Amino acid sequence: MPGTPPTRFVYLGPEGTFAEQALRTVPAAEHGTRTPARSVGEALDSVRAGDADAALVPLENSIGGAVGVTLDEMAEGEPLVITREVILPVEFVLAARPGTALASVRSVAAHPQASTQCRGWLRDHLPDAAVVDVLSNGAAAAGAAAGEYDAAICAPIGAARHRLTVLADKIADHPDAVTRFALVSRPGPPPPPTGDDVTSLAIYIAHDRVGALLSVLMELAVRGVNLTRIESRPTGEALGRYVFFLDCTGHVADVRLGEALQGLRRVCAEVRFLGSYPRHRWSPAERPVPAPPGLSDADYADAAAWLARLRAGELS
Amino acid sequence: MPGTPPTRFVYLGPEGTFAEQALRTVPAAEHGTRTPARSVGEALDSVRAGDADAALVPLENSIGGAVGVTLDEMAEGEPLVITREVILPVEFVLAARPGTALASVRSVAAHPQASTQCRGWLRDHLPDAAVVDVLSNGAAAAGAAAGEYDAAICAPIGAARHRLTVLADKIADHPDAVTRFALVSRPGPPPPPTGDDVTSLAIYIAHDRVGALLSVLMELAVRGVNLTRIESRPTGEALGRYVFFLDCTGHVADVRLGEALQGLRRVCAEVRFLGSYPRHRWSPAERPVPAPPGLSDADYADAAAWLARLRAGELS
Amino acid sequence: MPGTPPTRFVYLGPEGTFAEQALRTVPAAEHGTRTPARSVGEALDSVRAGDADAALVPLENSIGGAVGVTLDEMAEGEPLVITREVILPVEFVLAARPGTALASVRSVAAHPQASTQCRGWLRDHLPDAAVVDVLSNGAAAAGAAAGEYDAAICAPIGAARHRLTVLADKIADHPDAVTRFALVSRPGPPPPPTGDDVTSLAIYIAHDRVGALLSVLMELAVRGVNLTRIESRPTGEALGRYVFFLDCTGHVADVRLGEALQGLRRVCAEVRFLGSYPRHRWSPAERPVPAPPGLSDADYADAAAWLARLRAGELS
Amino acid sequence: MPGTPPTRFVYLGPEGTFAEQALRTVPAAEHGTRTPARSVGEALDSVRAGDADAALVPLENSIGGAVGVTLDEMAEGEPLVITREVILPVEFVLAARPGTALASVRSVAAHPQASTQCRGWLRDHLPDAAVVDVLSNGAAAAGAAAGEYDAAICAPIGAARHRLTVLADKIADHPDAVTRFALVSRPGPPPPPTGDDVTSLAIYIAHDRVGALLSVLMELAVRGVNLTRIESRPTGEALGRYVFFLDCTGHVADVRLGEALQGLRRVCAEVRFLGSYPRHRWSPAERPVPAPPGLSDADYADAAAWLARLRAGELS
Repeated sequence: MPGTPPTRFVYLGPEGTFAEQALRTVPAAEHGTRTPARSVGEALDSVRAGDADAALVPLENSIGGAVGVTLDEMAEGEPLVITREVILPVEFVLAARPGTALASVRSVAAHPQASTQCRGWLRDHLPDAAVVDVLSNGAAAAGAAAGEYDAAICAPIGAARHRLTVLADKIADHPDAVTRFALVSRPGPPPPPTGDDVTSLAIYIAHDRVGALLSVLMELAVRGVNLTRIESRPTGEALGRYVFFLDCTGHVADVRLGEALQGLRRVCAEVRFLGSYPRHRWSPAERPVPAPPGLSDADYADAAAWLARLRAGELS
Repeated sequence: MPGTPPTRFVYLGPEGTFAEQALRTVPAAEHGTRTPARSVGEALDSVRAGDADAALVPLENSIGGAVGVTLDEMAEGEPLVITREVILPVEFVLAARPGTALASVRSVAAHPQASTQCRGWLRDHLPDAAVVDVLSNGAAAAGAAAGEYDAAICAPIGAARHRLTVLADKIADHPDAVTRFALVSRPGPPPPPTGDDVTSLAIYIAHDRVGALLSVLMELAVRGVNLTRIESRPTGEALGRYVFFLDCTGHVADVRLGEALQGLRRVCAEVRFLGSYPRHRWSPAERPVPAPPGLSDADYADAAAWLARLRAGELS
Repeated sequence: MPGTPPTRFVYLGPEGTFAEQALRTVPAAEHGTRTPARSVGEALDSVRAGDADAALVPLENSIGGAVGVTLDEMAEGEPLVITREVILPVEFVLAARPGTALASVRSVAAHPQASTQCRGWLRDHLPDAAVVDVLSNGAAAAGAAAGEYDAAICAPIGAARHRLTVLADKIADHPDAVTRFALVSRPGPPPPPTGDDVTSLAIYIAHDRVGALLSVLMELAVRGVNLTRIESRPTGEALGRYVFFLDCTGHVADVRLGEALQGLRRVCAEVRFLGSYPRHRWSPAERPVPAPPGLSDADYADAAAWLARLRAGELS
Repeated sequence: MPGTPPTRFVYLGPEGTFAEQALRTVPAAEHGTRTPARSVGEALDSVRAGDADAALVPLENSIGGAVGVTLDEMAEGEPLVITREVILPVEFVLAARPGTALASVRSVAAHPQASTQCRGWLRDHLPDAAVVDVLSNGAAAAGAAAGEYDAAICAPIGAARHRLTVLADKIADHPDAVTRFALVSRPGPPPPPTGDDVTSLAIYIAHDRVGALLSVLMELAVRGVNLTRIESRPTGEALGRYVFFLDCTGHVADVRLGEALQGLRRVCAEVRFLGSYPRHRWSPAERPVPAPPGLSDADYADAAAWLARLRAGELS
């Protein structure tokens, strides 16, 4: 029911992954149910079907890039909207059953993206260990707990859940790596503007890429709307046909962004609105970009007042 | 008083010029007073002072170009607005006192712009006549009537007023030449939109010409607003500082033009609104330019309705 | 040695995958050595180290999108260039040990991307079979051959190599799905222009995304260079910092593209050239996009000749 | 003959106007013949016919704007090129026959543009004098000398030539007003680049004004070419059809401007080159505008060298 806070949450499982850790930062989720899903598609479908109120799924990783399956699922099927973003530092640990010494580790289970992010550490500390690909960080921890591998690269929450000892923490080569998650619901009124919001869109443009993409960027630039993310994904029809995922600064309720959205609606083959929600500032260094000269909210208000005077025949 | 139709008209004199002829096409002027002014500045000042309700002055000629003094006067001083445009074919005649034969004409009085426009005819028909520059078409007719010159190049109305005989009509080299006049009043509510309107502006831009002028054109292009005229005039401060006079398709009350005007207000150093008024279509060949794909009024309405649904949380 | 045709080839293994199939379409590879690599990184590093002359790796899939690891490897480390593209229809088959009946299949091994692409077929024909994720199409075939699973989703070449029987072919939901592969070498003179070429680039732009990306597109649009692909990838520094991968129509030796490349070099933080090579047209429906009006090669030649006349003082 | 310095000069007469004063600042003209012409057209035609080597004509005035007749004559007929610009402060004086006292002046002869520029001075010092329009500054001085008027507004050179006494000098309301003149010759190799040059062009664009003019400005902006002047003039065909006169920073021999010129040639209906010549800096406050970031000559050279390496297969 619109307006009712969500109580039934689903997240990309298995248990003990970063997605569960991200969900636990959402206050309402602490008091609600938290159910793991086997895939992003399953998580989103349970929201669509009304079996869950909200799903927490990964959007992108600062090392690995966009999570294609989430983008594809958001762009197709019944519409869903993002109501919140959660940005989580990616802290990989090397975990093993209690009593295991680092020097004795001969095999390490890891999801390929995880072992890629820890390549430097592995080369320096376990040059002779065999790295075995598994299908998730949770599966790595489970395999180490079951004795299939000597150790696992996993999230701290995965080590805890499988009662593993942490042999080394913060082993990722990029210490600042983060993953961005989205809390996704069925359509409803967006959360109110906070003054520092993000609006996510999926847009489809005509075949002639330079001209059409140029038009899209001009619609944004002319209104001083900043793009903080642009990702392209194939539409599946043919090579060279894309849907673009944009994150814009601002809220659908803002005058400036409202005007830009109407412009995109006019020039794009299709625009799908994926939500307006507060920006999660995980670092004090990441400041809102100020509006360019002449494009602040005050400039918009001044221009609107001026136009009203013109229309009324008052030119003073 | 706003809303009261004008009854006291002033026009660029002297009597017997194209401006008087243009004024007589304005229905209200037939029943009001019509007073000639010695200059465009005098005509506009009498409107500003409240001594006249409206002034009819020339804006541009299809051969000679913009009438700089009118543009300068509109851009400076107390604001005035155009409420009507009148486009008049420029039909020059060669006129002389009754009894004069074309073959006997040895001197022709003409305003320099008039003799320029009839250069071909003069070369073919009066190769040996001396062309004497005078300061207006009306002065040419008056001089011929007074016997100072054998003949005059003037407007038909000038020949009639000075009781001259027309020795040859339509003597201009460009048979399609026209002059565009403006009826100018003190600020007030603009005439209602007709669906085929013009909006005139004077804009001042920052010194870096390429970037600033590019921004202005982008504000218009993004909204599909067509420019039918762009003239630059020096501001008088220094070489290289200009004010630009723009005629845009549309009415200040239109959504599309309203959005573009607000954009210009934000990116320009100054925008002076010079009026929205019905286009005078003097030729059936001059058709309204249709809006580019995605930029019709229907597209604007669709985008506005879509945005309203987004804001309400309805994504259907 | 530059100019010497490559004889030692490496490809993304294991044997029996689409990459091997793609490599066999390269004439020189039929007569050279073909060695599988365990990862894209390993394949490219063996070229960088001089242990192989060329590597065949996947670039993108019309369903799954860009192959991030290939893009990342091309953008970093010692420069490499693409000398050829190979586009291969993705034809998945369901394969099993000889004697297996479709009705008896209870478990299917598949790479997650493969099972995603065959989801509809599996739902219709094997609704009760368990789909088990494995790490490559080749591993799926090997697992089925070893009796670990009843069947495998794999490439035709994988079924053949592991002596499996094809129970069903063309089982992908998108019958037109293709994968695009690149043949990559150490830098050297590009293959000669053919009139229908692709140039690949990796570009880094400044933080302000709208303005900077707009500049990039303007550099291309002004020269009439068409973009057939644009992909963004995070640089790994922080969320919101991207490298863009562009595929442009044209060859580095062309005047038009040369001028555009110089423009990108000037406005981008960095441009990495990834090669000019003949376009592989896998479908007659995919035609070269003709140059926009005024931007054909003939227009370029005309403008260059005109400029030469101006500089020589001949204005004819 | 190309390369031969001009010796036969013509200028817009009559004698004693600013044009003669401007011509005397050209060193070669001091030793050559200097013949007044009755009109700009006559001056230019005598160069076209080979009767003169160069003509000095006015281009624009910082108060009155472009000299339309000069622009029109340059845009039509046999091509001519500007080889030098001369910028002259406009210093109007009030001159009368010797013995005349200011207080006794009852009639003042003046060209209308001159009296407009001195309106404030006349109102303050001669509020009761009649201002009589005449056809040139030279005619005003001649009329005062002949006793037809009590005084004349004219150039200092005009007072001297007609042996008039200067009753007041620097009487223009804008003390910084200047007029810009052009020295015009038959086509030939342009003067060598000086590092601070101007290139003048006349361009014709297609009917859709916003899009076409936007393309023109993009061609310039993308190459960092600055516009110091843009003037529109009707082509005479119909209202709304214009030729644009542009003054760009740079020389036709420059790489940057050469590339931009080729771009204009491709997107415009027609481009007429009107010359590259040294900028006349009449004020130390008017400095060359530095090239935008990434668009300096050094950036152009760097990009050209980089492209050459790419084409040679050297990527280092």
